[in-house]
Amino acid sequence: MSGEGGGPARGMNFERSRELFERAAKVIPGGIYGSKAPGFLVPGAYPYYIERAKGCRMWDADGNEFIDFLCGYGSQIVGYGNEAVDRPALERAGRGDLLDQPAPVMVELAERLTALVEGAAWAVFVKNGTDATTLAYSLARVRTEKPVAILAEGAYHGAANWCSSNAFPGLEDERRNVFSFPYNDLPALERLFERERGRIACLFLTPYHHPTFAPQVMPDPALYDTARRLCDEEGALLVMDDIRANFRLHPRGSHLRFGARPDLWCMGKALANGYPISALLGAESLRATANSFFITGTYWMSAVPMVASMACLDEMDRLGGVPRLEEMGALFKEGIESAGRASGFGARVTGPAAIPFITFDEDPDLYLNQRFGAAMARRGVFIHPHHNGFISLAHSEDDMGITIERARRAFEAMAVGRE
Amino acid sequence: MSGEGGGPARGMNFERSRELFERAAKVIPGGIYGSKAPGFLVPGAYPYYIERAKGCRMWDADGNEFIDFLCGYGSQIVGYGNEAVDRPALERAGRGDLLDQPAPVMVELAERLTALVEGAAWAVFVKNGTDATTLAYSLARVRTEKPVAILAEGAYHGAANWCSSNAFPGLEDERRNVFSFPYNDLPALERLFERERGRIACLFLTPYHHPTFAPQVMPDPALYDTARRLCDEEGALLVMDDIRANFRLHPRGSHLRFGARPDLWCMGKALANGYPISALLGAESLRATANSFFITGTYWMSAVPMVASMACLDEMDRLGGVPRLEEMGALFKEGIESAGRASGFGARVTGPAAIPFITFDEDPDLYLNQRFGAAMARRGVFIHPHHNGFISLAHSEDDMGITIERARRAFEAMAVGRE
Repeated sequence: MSGEGGGPARGMNFERSRELFERAAKVIPGGIYGSKAPGFLVPGAYPYYIERAKGCRMWDADGNEFIDFLCGYGSQIVGYGNEAVDRPALERAGRGDLLDQPAPVMVELAERLTALVEGAAWAVFVKNGTDATTLAYSLARVRTEKPVAILAEGAYHGAANWCSSNAFPGLEDERRNVFSFPYNDLPALERLFERERGRIACLFLTPYHHPTFAPQVMPDPALYDTARRLCDEEGALLVMDDIRANFRLHPRGSHLRFGARPDLWCMGKALANGYPISALLGAESLRATANSFFITGTYWMSAVPMVASMACLDEMDRLGGVPRLEEMGALFKEGIESAGRASGFGARVTGPAAIPFITFDEDPDLYLNQRFGAAMARRGVFIHPHHNGFISLAHSEDDMGITIERARRAFEAMAVGRE
Repeated sequence: MSGEGGGPARGMNFERSRELFERAAKVIPGGIYGSKAPGFLVPGAYPYYIERAKGCRMWDADGNEFIDFLCGYGSQIVGYGNEAVDRPALERAGRGDLLDQPAPVMVELAERLTALVEGAAWAVFVKNGTDATTLAYSLARVRTEKPVAILAEGAYHGAANWCSSNAFPGLEDERRNVFSFPYNDLPALERLFERERGRIACLFLTPYHHPTFAPQVMPDPALYDTARRLCDEEGALLVMDDIRANFRLHPRGSHLRFGARPDLWCMGKALANGYPISALLGAESLRATANSFFITGTYWMSAVPMVASMACLDEMDRLGGVPRLEEMGALFKEGIESAGRASGFGARVTGPAAIPFITFDEDPDLYLNQRFGAAMARRGVFIHPHHNGFISLAHSEDDMGITIERARRAFEAMAVGRE
């Protein structure tokens, strides 16, 4: 690993990662699948296996240390191994996690979330984020007795067939009534509502647009009023998929950042600092529909992630919450962009301060992302080349200083073609 | 709680359960949803909230103690709070659970399961059991480019729309190509394959039939050969949904108990003693299909449940595995049935010894199940009235003795109309 302060990159050894991956390739399709597949990073330049993490740092299977800006795909908001979250979670684990019936904490968490998220009257707990978005789509259809979901092009709402990239022959059933519009293109959205009039169950929006492989886009000031009006005229539901962004834009739900008025809210990831839980929250008007639906999963009422979520909500506040995340995010954005400029690169950090994504104005094809990501990985900073990053409350001013200094060196090496 | 040995039932206080449920009803649709909803038990006779569990015992929110025969819906196979599982899991938790990339244990667990489950060449890890069954249905469709799934009537394959009881208007898309046949009715199965010929992607079977609200049924001796032949003729895949039964029928996959030859295996629940993980295992011939599919979930590669699974597999062996479960299950079956007979009830325990379900020959409508379940709950034994039960390796001869003695008293009270 490079020295603190961004010294020259030394060779980083991924021998054990490679050895594990070779074994994995025999017993797991692709060795590692989905968003963690090596091909989604830069093969050979990033570790494939992580052994340990603490705060904002992680150590891979070969012992290489990284400052982490992916944060478990956003789940880590108060830092890996945060004692204030882990202590009560472990105490709860000692008394039981998965039980025949829920533990009392389920009531407390539902009370807390419905009090916290303005507009939400009820909550149900599920496991995957995709469970929450898929349940939202189902409840919208049951409520409206109409089949269509409208999404923004390139928006990520999970890995279920109705919303994933798995558009294979044979999977038409779930996708036949899902249509998309270019994000922020309000006339296109109006036209789509017109075209499908009488058939639309719901419109899904993430609080802002965070596509993979492209800069992030903040919502048009008129997006949410238009969305609400179109949904009301159609009798369709507005679903806020806040899974990736929740608690990094607004402490009471990202919709409040933009004045959106959803009917359903999907939350997850940062909700419990990586403990496996997601939630669907809904307006009072949808309570009976939710109650009529058989919502179940063996692990869905497990107690440990609920205790972790309660503690995580406290700890976010204690550590400074959104203002602190934005302060660190501003250091990140300013530092990366100016380090790029100093070496002649048009690095641009898009999205909300706490959820930054670096792209290069001169390279929409993301080759520079890969070069920069690899150069940073060599220097002990884990920045995903194709997916937005995340700031956590465990990132300090010092961590940002080290990161920016390493970025400066990385850009210098890239400028002279050394990396 | 009643005294050990089945003394007269004393009033069991559910005050705190009721109080929590009243609060829950304001912020959670139905208060408690899905399979844990009070209406699925006997409202008022069972606790709604569990506070703590250890071994085969659990304590509800009011401090009432129960010997548990639901085992976290089958997940508890080596007992709640089993140190041999929890110790390495907690150690792993201290180093990180959800990380940016998998931990090395993912490779070890895939190697272990593919070595263990005869016929499986690869494994992918998911969270819900439904993730595994839904992925199986998706991969079968991608592989065959055909849309149809065939299931047994009343079989449970999860809570996704394609297989759940949520047959609401608006949800036709996922269900339009799912058809079912009466379990063990081989001519009906042949006719269904004939009717849908050229359109069938897969046939789902659980190792034996475990419907809700009905006695369990073991497979016809010709079922699996017929299923294999029909699938081969059609070019369809045979999926073994072993989630509920795995490791209680055969240590290397329940298909071996019946000589079945599946292409895909779904596992979960007892796989990690309640830690949230499920797995889809597949034959070599499906590796490329699985590799082409974008399989992902934020929590799917978390390390703690994988470590727990490795430890659980060891601990099952150490505690005696299937033979020991069957020994305890035989005590349960023999004891319950003879206790019933002694008071004139035709209690019948169906299914494999380790996964018993009690029904009454004289009452197919299950009212007696509810009376018996309530009478047992009052005596500190948690037997689900509508869902099969589970034996765990934490159930001892003494626990069975106490249970049977309480059953004897419960039947006596029922016989004289006192309960």
